[in-house]
This record gives sequence, C-alpha cells and structure tokens, in this order.
Amino acid sequence: MTDRKRMSASAPIGVFDSGVGGLTVVREIMSQIPSERIVYFGDTARVPYGGKSKETITMYSEQIVRFLLQQGVKAIVVACNTASAYALDTLEKEIDIPIIGVVKPGAKTAAETTKNGRIGIIGTEGTVGSRIYEKYISKVAPNAQVVGKACPLFCPLVEEGLLDDPVTDEIARRYLEGLKGSGIDTLILGCTHYPLIRTTIGRIMGENVTLVNPAWETAHALKDLLSEEGILNPEATHESLLEHRFYVSDSAEKFSRFANTALKYENIFAKTVRIEEY
Amino acid sequence: MTDRKRMSASAPIGVFDSGVGGLTVVREIMSQIPSERIVYFGDTARVPYGGKSKETITMYSEQIVRFLLQQGVKAIVVACNTASAYALDTLEKEIDIPIIGVVKPGAKTAAETTKNGRIGIIGTEGTVGSRIYEKYISKVAPNAQVVGKACPLFCPLVEEGLLDDPVTDEIARRYLEGLKGSGIDTLILGCTHYPLIRTTIGRIMGENVTLVNPAWETAHALKDLLSEEGILNPEATHESLLEHRFYVSDSAEKFSRFANTALKYENIFAKTVRIEEY
Repeated sequence: MTDRKRMSASAPIGVFDSGVGGLTVVREIMSQIPSERIVYFGDTARVPYGGKSKETITMYSEQIVRFLLQQGVKAIVVACNTASAYALDTLEKEIDIPIIGVVKPGAKTAAETTKNGRIGIIGTEGTVGSRIYEKYISKVAPNAQVVGKACPLFCPLVEEGLLDDPVTDEIARRYLEGLKGSGIDTLILGCTHYPLIRTTIGRIMGENVTLVNPAWETAHALKDLLSEEGILNPEATHESLLEHRFYVSDSAEKFSRFANTALKYENIFAKTVRIEEY
Repeated sequence: MTDRKRMSASAPIGVFDSGVGGLTVVREIMSQIPSERIVYFGDTARVPYGGKSKETITMYSEQIVRFLLQQGVKAIVVACNTASAYALDTLEKEIDIPIIGVVKPGAKTAAETTKNGRIGIIGTEGTVGSRIYEKYISKVAPNAQVVGKACPLFCPLVEEGLLDDPVTDEIARRYLEGLKGSGIDTLILGCTHYPLIRTTIGRIMGENVTLVNPAWETAHALKDLLSEEGILNPEATHESLLEHRFYVSDSAEKFSRFANTALKYENIFAKTVRIEEY
C-alpha cells in the first residue's frame, strides 16, 4: 500500500442527497462497512430535486462535490436518484476520486432479479424522464423491457409522515395501477424516500413482484469499489457516531431531529453550510 | 411631478415568488392596474419556501430583490406568503423603493371582514409558524382571535393538478376539521396556491365562513401605494404582454408553459437567471 493510499484509506466517504432521503443509504453503509467514517451533505435549502432541470441539478451537485472534496473525502456516493440520473456523468469527468451513484447498482440488481425480463421503475419526474435506469439495465440484460412511472406525490406524503395511511394507499394505487397491469416481476424503488412506504407499494404490487431497494446494493458496490481501489479502511477504529459529520444547507436543528430518528442514534449534530459559495 | 418621479412612473413593478404561485397575484395586478408593466421572478430552482428556515428565505429574497433592482423596478411586491412572513421586515430596511407583501393586505381584509372576531389562517409551515398574520390582524382588530393551521400537502396536490379530487377533499377535510370546529367566520388563504382549491376549501368550511384571498387586496393596496408615492403610471401605454418580463431560476420552458395557462396568454417567454450570483 502506497503512502497516498494509506492516507486515503483513513479518509472519510462523502455522501450527498437533496435532503434527508440519502440517510437510508447512509444507514446501509454504516451497517455494511462499519469501519468507514461518513461526511454527509443534505441540500435541505434547495430540496426537492425531483422536478427541476438537468442544468440546475448538475450545478447544485457540482457545488456539493466541491464542498465534499474540501472535507478531504476519499470517495463520493451520490445518494440521490435524481442527481445520479442527471449529474453523475459530468461529475465523474471532473474529479479524480471514485464516485458512485445509486442508479447503476439498483439497475444491476433489478436486471439480475427479473425472471420474465419485465422491470418497473418508480421515481421522481427527473429520474424517470431521464431513462437512466433503462440505459444501465440494458447493459446487463439487453432484452429487458423497462416501464417507468413518476410518482411526484410520494415524497411529500412520506415527509408528512403518512406512511401507513388511506390517502397514501389511494395515491399509490393510482400511480401503480398501470405498472401492475404491465406484467413486471421486479420493481425498482428509484427514490430514497420510497423504501419508507415499501409495505404499501408491496401490498399493491402483490407478492409476485420483487421490490429492489438500490440503497442496499449501493453500499455493497461501495465496499467492492473501495477494495478494488485499495482504500478500504482496514481498521475498525470508530466506536461512536461522533466521527461522522453531517452538513445541510438549511436549518441544522430541523435536520438533526429527523436524522436522529432515521438513523436511530441520538448524537447527530448537523452544521449549516452556505453551499452557494462552493 | 418631479423628473425622478416621472421617470419612476414609467418604470416596471417587480413581483417575486418562490415559484409559479405568485402569478395569481400578477393576474390581479394586470386586471386592476393594466397600465403597469411587470418584471416577475419565480425562484423555481429553489422552490418550495414553505418548510425552510427564516435565514434561508431571507437570503434568497435578498438575492431576488437585488436582481429586481438591477432591472430598474420602481416598487416591489413580495407575492409569496412565506417570504412576506420571514423577509419583508428585513427587505424594507435595505431598499429605498416601496415594497409590499401579501400578508398585510390579507390581514387587513380579514380583520375588516370578520363579524364574530374569529379568523382562521391556512398556509405553509413557515407562514403559519411565524404568526405574522396574527400580528397584523391585531393592529386592525386588537380583540380578534386568530387560529392558524399549516397545510403542507396543499401545494404538492395543486402542482400535481388534483384540484377537484377525492384525495384533495380527504386531506382538506383533515387539515380543516379543527378550524371548522373553532367557530371562525373568516378564513385567509395564506398561500398563493390555495385559491386554486378554493371550491374544495369553501365546501368543507361551509357558507358561513368567508374566504379571503390576499392576492386581490394586494393588487388594490399596490395601486393605492403607487398613487400615494406619485409613481402610478398615468399612461396606459402597453397593449400586449410583450412588455412584461418573466424570469426564473430553473428551466424557463417549463415555467412558460405553466404561466401561459395560468395567465391565459400565449406569448410569455421566460428567461433563466442564475439568481445565486446576485
């Protein structure tokens, strides 16, 4: 191991999302690679990304990546489907540390899971409209058919806490009706908020449709990537959450409350960053 | 009339909002003061404002005001309830042209409308949490009781086009249940999106509750203000929408489509502005 890599190995991993949803990816990373420190950035001042243009999302992602690089991260995870869909290609060209999104690992799993070659993908307008999942699925399973459906109300419903509610049921039924009729056997939860209403989605789609949550597969892919690059942290040094760092662009206090619930810890203290200045 | 005022009188009026909702205020201004030109800015890249902090909303509003001043506006209308609630006091101190929000005119009308002294206000978390309507109502009607209720799902439901839908009915019924039981006779629609579901809100509240839409009253207050300041444009020079200008922070194309529907014109061509640079 070279000095550079030894130094890199102990550096933290940068993870970013449009807001709080990326914490579901953080949770998976913490569980699968507990020796790694995380620097998280949630763009809570400019959330949501789902309905905004590629240009805007790319500009925002570039600012966040510049911020994370300044924090000395050794690798970056784009824990937001919309940012992965729109900005990952650009970001990859601009930086020289490893960067992965949630789309490619999710697409790979779905392509390997389907038996009848029919895969559904639900996400924001941006993610579904970009047809990015389709592109990656076709690399693994060229004959697979992919059906996309944007579900713009799922995020606000989840953020309002209506996780198990007749209104969410009704909206989900409308969104998923067409997908159910299309004969898919695999459905990608293409937005980090959707695992939180997984039960509702699963009940509507029925037991013959397998739900794929890209968060788990992303953490797995990250571990492989760090190994290949020789920058996996070999020492399980950290014992507490205090070594992780959380940053947001809006109020830190509001985020901390949510994060402590989502991650089931009680010692997250986020800091506010003026992300526009990066 | 001094030269400065004559010059001012022909200058446009700046109107801004977090996104497209402020167009309901623009429509009122166009109808009540047709001789005035408008420069509109919609912060579509950073929308919504409703759940974000006072610091963030104030910073965003300051950037937009700097942009509008550069466009040579003679007065500014804050056509967003959340920005009016959080940022207007600060903005007033920072600029030397007249600036008005939607809150004060709406509060005044409500205070003059109520007969039993009980007024309800619905809006975003920011607007309701700021208790700004209460403050202005108490100046006109010191004994009025004000009951507030945040309705965070109304904006996404309106933006999804569910204006007349059982789901919107059900959500509205939940949000408004408590207000209905509180004996109010006047309800302020404290968010520019809400007039679009006025029928649903009215049906639930019943015919004994008067709905107040601050957009109408704001346009009226603007006309009075321009008169008082001697900068009302005396000449009804403009004949077409081409003299109005529309700017947004995200995709101009998407906004133009919506704006042409909302304003029932077909010649709106918005431009994108990098608002972060102001």
